Amino acid sequence: MKPNEPAIKIPYGMKDFLPAEARYKRVLEEKLAVQFGAWGYEEVVTPTLEYLQTLTTGTGLDLSEQMFVFFDRSNRILALRPEMTIPIARLTATRLREKALPLRLFYLTNVFRHEEAQAGRQCEFYQAGVELMGVSEPAADAEVIALAITSALSAGLRDFRICLGQVDFINGIMDDARLREQERQDIKRCLVKRDLVGLERTAKHSGLPAEQQAGICRIPLLSGGKEVLTEARALVTSAVSQAALDNLAAIFELLQAYGLQQYVAFDLGIIRDFDYYTGMVFEGYTPGLGFPFCGGGHYDRMLASFGWECPATGFAMGIERLLLALNRQGISQPEQTRDVYVGWQAGNLAAAIAAARQRREIGAIVELSPVAESRAQAEQSRQQRGFRELLFMGE
Amino acid sequence: MKPNEPAIKIPYGMKDFLPAEARYKRVLEEKLAVQFGAWGYEEVVTPTLEYLQTLTTGTGLDLSEQMFVFFDRSNRILALRPEMTIPIARLTATRLREKALPLRLFYLTNVFRHEEAQAGRQCEFYQAGVELMGVSEPAADAEVIALAITSALSAGLRDFRICLGQVDFINGIMDDARLREQERQDIKRCLVKRDLVGLERTAKHSGLPAEQQAGICRIPLLSGGKEVLTEARALVTSAVSQAALDNLAAIFELLQAYGLQQYVAFDLGIIRDFDYYTGMVFEGYTPGLGFPFCGGGHYDRMLASFGWECPATGFAMGIERLLLALNRQGISQPEQTRDVYVGWQAGNLAAAIAAARQRREIGAIVELSPVAESRAQAEQSRQQRGFRELLFMGE
Repeated sequence: MKPNEPAIKIPYGMKDFLPAEARYKRVLEEKLAVQFGAWGYEEVVTPTLEYLQTLTTGTGLDLSEQMFVFFDRSNRILALRPEMTIPIARLTATRLREKALPLRLFYLTNVFRHEEAQAGRQCEFYQAGVELMGVSEPAADAEVIALAITSALSAGLRDFRICLGQVDFINGIMDDARLREQERQDIKRCLVKRDLVGLERTAKHSGLPAEQQAGICRIPLLSGGKEVLTEARALVTSAVSQAALDNLAAIFELLQAYGLQQYVAFDLGIIRDFDYYTGMVFEGYTPGLGFPFCGGGHYDRMLASFGWECPATGFAMGIERLLLALNRQGISQPEQTRDVYVGWQAGNLAAAIAAARQRREIGAIVELSPVAESRAQAEQSRQQRGFRELLFMGE
Repeated sequence: MKPNEPAIKIPYGMKDFLPAEARYKRVLEEKLAVQFGAWGYEEVVTPTLEYLQTLTTGTGLDLSEQMFVFFDRSNRILALRPEMTIPIARLTATRLREKALPLRLFYLTNVFRHEEAQAGRQCEFYQAGVELMGVSEPAADAEVIALAITSALSAGLRDFRICLGQVDFINGIMDDARLREQERQDIKRCLVKRDLVGLERTAKHSGLPAEQQAGICRIPLLSGGKEVLTEARALVTSAVSQAALDNLAAIFELLQAYGLQQYVAFDLGIIRDFDYYTGMVFEGYTPGLGFPFCGGGHYDRMLASFGWECPATGFAMGIERLLLALNRQGISQPEQTRDVYVGWQAGNLAAAIAAARQRREIGAIVELSPVAESRAQAEQSRQQRGFRELLFMGE
C-alpha cells in the first residue's frame, strides 16, 4: 500500500524524538527534577491550553503574535502556552496563595511558539524551570541563579557562563534622559536584538546631548567580570541605575558564597524579551549555541495582575538546547544497558517466559523473543539488538 | 489590585496539578518508564500537534469529532493528538522501519479529547503506553497484556482485572448473520456503550432467525473465567469466531506462564472504541472507577495506511485514572521527605549558604531561608514547612 504523502509529514517546527534522543531527554529531565527537588522546589503541572487572555495578562509584550491560537466550542480564544511563568502566576495567585511564603515551584514541560525553526529552536519545545515567590531580597535572586548553575552542571555542562543584567539599570538611564515611550521601546528592542547599529541610530535621533547618547550606546558593551559594575557606576547618575548596580553587587557576593562565581559574568545590556521582568535578569550561554540555553529574572508586578501582590524570581532552561549543547560539546550520552535477550526453541515459550520474569524481578533489562528461534538465530538477534547476554531455552 | 476574572480561569476540562498530585504523577510515571524499559521498550516523543489528516489515517472512526482542531498559518488543519497509537504508527513507518523487528516502543505523554469532564476524565489527560510491532503471534499479545498487568502492579494497584475480548469473535458472528453495514455499526456502537437494550432492539430489527438474534444479545454477557471460552465455542459456528477463541485461549495459556492469570478474565463484548483493532482487545477495570484504567489490543492494518505492512499490539494506561483509583482505594501516596531547613540570623547568610550546599552535596533535600530569622522564627518555619531538621546559623 502506498503511504498517504501528507499524512506522514509533521507540521512545521515540530519534532519527533527517536529512542536515543528521547532516552537522553528523560535522563536529563530526571536529573533536573531531582536537583530542583533537592533545593525544596515542588513540581506543578498546568494545562497545555489556556485562555489567550490569561496568557497575555500582566505582559505588555506581544508574545501573542507567536502563539498558537484557536477557538473553543463557545468561540473563546484559547492558546497553547508559550511559556510557563504566567500559567504558574495564575495557578499560585488562585490556588496556592494561602500557603506559607516563600513558595518554591518547578515545572518540566513543553511550550509552543511560532519561530523560525532551526537546530535547538523548534515551535514546540521543552523547558525546565523554577519560580521562587514571596521574596524581594537579593538572596532569592542568588538562589535562583545558583540553582540554574547547579542544574546546568548536573546536566553535564561544564563550559558555560551566566550573564547578569538588571532592567532597572537601563530604565534609570532612560528616565534620566527623559526619553519618550516610543524611544524607550526602540532602545529596548535594539537591546533585545543586540542591534548596536539600530541603537546608535535611535540614540542619535533622540536629540540628547552627545554624552548621554554615548552612554546609551555603551550599555550593550558593559559586559565582563566584576569590574563592569565599577565602570557602569562611573557612567550613570540615576539613583535607580545605582540601586540596580548595588543589587547586582549583592547578588554576586552571595554567588561567591555558593562557590559559583566562576560561572557568572555581567552583561548590562541584557533585558530579556519578556516585559514582566522588573529587577535582575540573566541568560546562560555555552559554546556551540547561538542563543541562551537558559534565562530568567526577577518580576515584582506580574502576580498582581492576577490579584496577588507578590515579588518573584525564576528561570527556564531549554531541554533541546541543553541536549544540543551537550552533543556539540561531545559530552557523551548515557549508555543504555541492555542485559539479557531470551530466545527459545519451539515448544519452550513457557519456560522462556518464566526465565525472563525471573531476570526482570532482579532488576535486569530483558527482551523476550516473541517467536521461536534456533540457538544460532537467537545469538544473532542478541547481537543485533545489543544485549550483553543470551539466555536460550531449548533442548 | 483586582484580579481579572476571566484571566484566572482555565478552559473547560483542563486541570492544574498542585504539588502533592504532581509529585505522585511523577513518581508513578517514573515507575512505569522503568517497568517499560525493563521489558526492552524504548521511549519516543512525538509532537503535540499533527495534521488532522495524519490523526485520521487508518481509522474509520470519527474520533475527529472529539479533537481540538485549528488551522496553521497556511490554513492546513492541525489537531492536538487524541491518542498516541497513530502518531507512533506514523513515526515508525517513516523513520524506524529499517530497524530490526520486533520494535518495542513506549510513550508517556498528554493527549486531548473533547469529553464531558468528570473526575478521572478530563479533556487533556496523560497516558503511558507501549506498542510492540512486527509480530502477529499470540506471544506478542500475551507480552503486552502481561506488561500492562505488571505495570498496574508496579503502580501499586492490587485489585483489578484485565478483561479480554477479540473483535473477530463478533465480526464472525456478524459475517455469519450476513448483517448489513449499518446494522454492524449499530451493534458495535451498542457494544461499545454496553447498551443491552439497544442491542436487543437492533437484533430484533435485523429480521434474523430468533436463535441468531439471541446469539447477538448474548455477546455482552459472555464474561467471566476460562469457562466463557467453552460457552462461546458452543454458541458460534463461524470459523472466524472459532479462530478468535483459539487465539484467546493461546494468549491465556501464555499469561499462565507469566503467572498472571489471576488478573485476567474474558469479556467477549469488548470491542474498544478505536476502529483500528483487528484481533485481541482488552480493558482493565478496578473498583471505584466507572471506566477502564487501561485498554489496548492488536492491530494489523493501521501501519499499512502509513505505507508499511506490519502487525502490532499495544496498550495505553490513563495516569489520572490510575491516580484516582489508587486514591479511592486508599493506597497511600509516597511521602515527600523534607530533610533540612536552614535558617540564619542577620549577617550569617554566607555561612547558611555554605551549610545548605554541604547538605545538598550529600543528597539531602534542603531549603534555605531567603530572609534572616531569629532561632525561634526559624524553628517555626521548619515546622510549618515540614522539615525534619533545623540547621540555624547564628551566634
